[in-house]
Amino acid sequence: MKAQRMDRSVAIAAREYAPYLEATWGFKNHWYPAFFSQEISENEIKAVTIAGHDIVLRRVHGRLFGLRDKCAHRGARFSQEPMCLNDESITCWYHGFTYGLSDGVLKTILASPEDPIIGKVRIRTYPVEERGGMVFIFVGDEDYRPLPTLESDQPPRMTDNPVFPYLFDENVFSRGIHRTVNSNWRLGMENGNDPTHILIHRKNFYVVMSGSKLPLGFLPASPEAGKFIEMPDGQKGVWGVNHDHYRPIMENRYLGLSVPKPVAGPRIDTYRISSWMPSALLVEDFPGSEWSTIEWYVPIDDTRHEYWQVALKLCRDENDRKAAAEFYETIGLPIGFENFNEIDLVARERLQQHYQDPEQFGQEAFFAGDIAIVSWRKLASRFNRGIQAAPQQSER
Amino acid sequence: MKAQRMDRSVAIAAREYAPYLEATWGFKNHWYPAFFSQEISENEIKAVTIAGHDIVLRRVHGRLFGLRDKCAHRGARFSQEPMCLNDESITCWYHGFTYGLSDGVLKTILASPEDPIIGKVRIRTYPVEERGGMVFIFVGDEDYRPLPTLESDQPPRMTDNPVFPYLFDENVFSRGIHRTVNSNWRLGMENGNDPTHILIHRKNFYVVMSGSKLPLGFLPASPEAGKFIEMPDGQKGVWGVNHDHYRPIMENRYLGLSVPKPVAGPRIDTYRISSWMPSALLVEDFPGSEWSTIEWYVPIDDTRHEYWQVALKLCRDENDRKAAAEFYETIGLPIGFENFNEIDLVARERLQQHYQDPEQFGQEAFFAGDIAIVSWRKLASRFNRGIQAAPQQSER
Amino acid sequence: MKAQRMDRSVAIAAREYAPYLEATWGFKNHWYPAFFSQEISENEIKAVTIAGHDIVLRRVHGRLFGLRDKCAHRGARFSQEPMCLNDESITCWYHGFTYGLSDGVLKTILASPEDPIIGKVRIRTYPVEERGGMVFIFVGDEDYRPLPTLESDQPPRMTDNPVFPYLFDENVFSRGIHRTVNSNWRLGMENGNDPTHILIHRKNFYVVMSGSKLPLGFLPASPEAGKFIEMPDGQKGVWGVNHDHYRPIMENRYLGLSVPKPVAGPRIDTYRISSWMPSALLVEDFPGSEWSTIEWYVPIDDTRHEYWQVALKLCRDENDRKAAAEFYETIGLPIGFENFNEIDLVARERLQQHYQDPEQFGQEAFFAGDIAIVSWRKLASRFNRGIQAAPQQSER
Repeated sequence: MKAQRMDRSVAIAAREYAPYLEATWGFKNHWYPAFFSQEISENEIKAVTIAGHDIVLRRVHGRLFGLRDKCAHRGARFSQEPMCLNDESITCWYHGFTYGLSDGVLKTILASPEDPIIGKVRIRTYPVEERGGMVFIFVGDEDYRPLPTLESDQPPRMTDNPVFPYLFDENVFSRGIHRTVNSNWRLGMENGNDPTHILIHRKNFYVVMSGSKLPLGFLPASPEAGKFIEMPDGQKGVWGVNHDHYRPIMENRYLGLSVPKPVAGPRIDTYRISSWMPSALLVEDFPGSEWSTIEWYVPIDDTRHEYWQVALKLCRDENDRKAAAEFYETIGLPIGFENFNEIDLVARERLQQHYQDPEQFGQEAFFAGDIAIVSWRKLASRFNRGIQAAPQQSER
Repeated sequence: MKAQRMDRSVAIAAREYAPYLEATWGFKNHWYPAFFSQEISENEIKAVTIAGHDIVLRRVHGRLFGLRDKCAHRGARFSQEPMCLNDESITCWYHGFTYGLSDGVLKTILASPEDPIIGKVRIRTYPVEERGGMVFIFVGDEDYRPLPTLESDQPPRMTDNPVFPYLFDENVFSRGIHRTVNSNWRLGMENGNDPTHILIHRKNFYVVMSGSKLPLGFLPASPEAGKFIEMPDGQKGVWGVNHDHYRPIMENRYLGLSVPKPVAGPRIDTYRISSWMPSALLVEDFPGSEWSTIEWYVPIDDTRHEYWQVALKLCRDENDRKAAAEFYETIGLPIGFENFNEIDLVARERLQQHYQDPEQFGQEAFFAGDIAIVSWRKLASRFNRGIQAAPQQSER
Repeated sequence: MKAQRMDRSVAIAAREYAPYLEATWGFKNHWYPAFFSQEISENEIKAVTIAGHDIVLRRVHGRLFGLRDKCAHRGARFSQEPMCLNDESITCWYHGFTYGLSDGVLKTILASPEDPIIGKVRIRTYPVEERGGMVFIFVGDEDYRPLPTLESDQPPRMTDNPVFPYLFDENVFSRGIHRTVNSNWRLGMENGNDPTHILIHRKNFYVVMSGSKLPLGFLPASPEAGKFIEMPDGQKGVWGVNHDHYRPIMENRYLGLSVPKPVAGPRIDTYRISSWMPSALLVEDFPGSEWSTIEWYVPIDDTRHEYWQVALKLCRDENDRKAAAEFYETIGLPIGFENFNEIDLVARERLQQHYQDPEQFGQEAFFAGDIAIVSWRKLASRFNRGIQAAPQQSER
């Protein structure tokens, strides 16, 4: 038997998600989180790169405006030296080209107020929405219409979960972090909803000390495991770990290993995971009982993504909120998002060494446990609104 | 209106300076400054890279010789470990290949004095001239003839300026610095002679504290503004800021800004700027009254240039020289060349992010204030003596 | 005479060793040293890259196994987080793919013990031999047969040297070091067996203080100088410095230099040098009288090689071994391998600047002293077992 990495069935599967294999720079015409609201104060200017789009944001009278972060004149970036001379515009620090915040049209040039190109040149703008303490940007084609709803690009309300904290509800406590990871965004997505990657968490302090035991992994146990979830508001997702459709694997005889049955602990074994277009993961019952976590793996460029972790909990009153804040600060953030998920960042960056060659996507030797990843790839191939091309001169 | 960066007239203009757009590595068959004389002592060896040419210089009995800094045998650089065993040659540190300083011919091999290749192999030499305390090298084709005069590639004597300090005159005080900037050389040239880039100097300490006020910029006010200047000794130039052909812009109503009229200060508002082939800028009345400055933006490679700033002043006697030296050390250098021009370096390196893609040259959204830059591009396209190709094996 | 680097005879010579010019990544289907035995303890896992092959080694019950350091599933490297769950296998840290050490076959998946791909996927293995305190790996095509002997790829026993310490003999004291050098492996080989590169050692402390004098270099003095050496056990080599076939050059009249005749010192002038396929150098009488040194220049990738220096000495008894160890620690290592050979590393890395362009191999202006290098190139072109291609997806 010659060393091999791919058999016929893998090749067939790869053809079924061919569009996904091209999405090195992510999918376009979707909403992506850019900042927490509190990260942009009144009058502040902030820059962010999403799926290769360099975007500058300015907040004026509370409202946020998003524009291409590059002056049409000579390509200087506004964010290199923020300069705003009135409430309706942003000015380039180099020659004073001044653009309207809401339409991107060149309104004046500082030293050439009568210039014939005024009003005839513009830079593109980006739709911005601020909800639930977060700033989302619609990234893709400027003329894409109709604009999809923000809700359609977020994990949906899980109506079978009686304590489900929906991201945009009023009575939800929401707090989180985001950081840059040096891997392609797909390695983030595929690590998050992978039902057998939990092997890497086996040595985690929290898991060991809590008396909970992680199984060796989960395998599909019903035809539901790989099906698409299509929600009324347009959300499209697939299940990762879901105890209704997956079964925990507790032993491996070849290696002489068996995992003690889970004890009654903080119910870590009850979590449920699902992936959502364009790049979000929903983890119910994490980082604690009755909590949920949303993770986003937002493409920055071909080799980096912004990793978001936001913890959510329903709160009836202010006491609930205080308790939630205390849990988040003492357990959720340090033990969950930081200690528990740290190895996930490591795994993604290790894999990037291999996937640096983008041709490696689609060459995997997949096994039964990879059904969640394969389903995700098919879902994304079918429901994306366009594949983001590598940035070119005309788009940047 | 779709976001755009270039209209028809820009495209037409770009065609008029197409050769300039190719000059990523600079123009060849021109004289460029390489060192201040005092930087190469007797018997010292120094290396410099100009427009992709790696050149080694050796000074013997006061005279400078320039050769290709690469041994014909195996490509070792002489400057990696200088070795000279007599007054007429330079020897490679690796195997002792020894070349004549004046003709580049292989004169001996240390370990093989009778070798048949002796006298049959050579490395190329470069013309070197030392004038006004500076060392200039003629960079380009080895067989280019006739050799142009050094004067033809420097800013000329400005006969309408009664106190003009000509670079090569005896009674001129001359002192300066040079440093490497991480941008293409053209971004240096185009920042220097740009009549509206002065916006970036508005917050400069010297400008603010001196009571001088810089206008928002200068716009062309006569057909002379964009004309070529062709001098009797062969120098070719264009005007940047010139109060005869440009008018200062003192207000912008859209933004509600106006600049107070210049007060009588150190006459900073009287400076006059011109650009000269192949890569020099002349600034009259800077860094002080009756001074001039020459800047050079010497191509090193495609992404770096050596930035020269030399202050010049006419001196009748030794007292004048002492006063000039004191002014240079206390004002000219720290307040002018360093403090005032620092933001110019920043601007060039910021723009390099955009022009890293060399296709961006010629894609600009130019406006009325860019006439000096457009004229410079046309001048350079017409009067260059050749476009330097990226270094290739046969040339390096 | 135009500056030139190559004449007709050089071009002809280059055609005679065309295969060598392609060997940027080394030759395949040869044995290369990977570690000293003591560098891999029982149960330890170590990774090494040779000629672009990423290899992981594990020692179990004393025996070493070599496998491709990349899981077939998703390309994770085993060595990123070593994990072994029994004595016959290696397990990937990410999803528990577990491969047999001796055959590379997928034996189980931790979370999917009944998976249909078990037994059907494998990763390639590498032959490993451990001899004389060193670990050698056969790098190349997995199906290359018959496997050449380890001896055929090492310097042979020199039967005309009565005190010759053969690498694999029982009564040989052997100790050494290895380190990474930032140059192509061929610059290592060609520096080692170069009879005129000794110029760079002329200022060496040990040479100067010992009263020994190095000549300016050695030139061929008999037709034997460039001949191939073909040994009964299959070793193929060429002479570098060999006092029977080369003569020392003691003066250069053009430069007015002459070297005093060698004095009776530590016989450094009696050393003899030969190069051996695929990448070894044998230096007899170094770092001391009656010692030998083997150097290897093992290709890592196209721009780096692992530089090995191993000192060997015949020892009749334990006292001999103690004396040898003391000499090695106080003279052989610090004065020889470190101080004396340091400039060789510098030379190779300096030359890499030039040979970064792989087209430079074959463009040299060779002279009489280069016969050893030219002969080596021809030998390697004729007796290599294949040219290692740059690593591709299917091979990595």
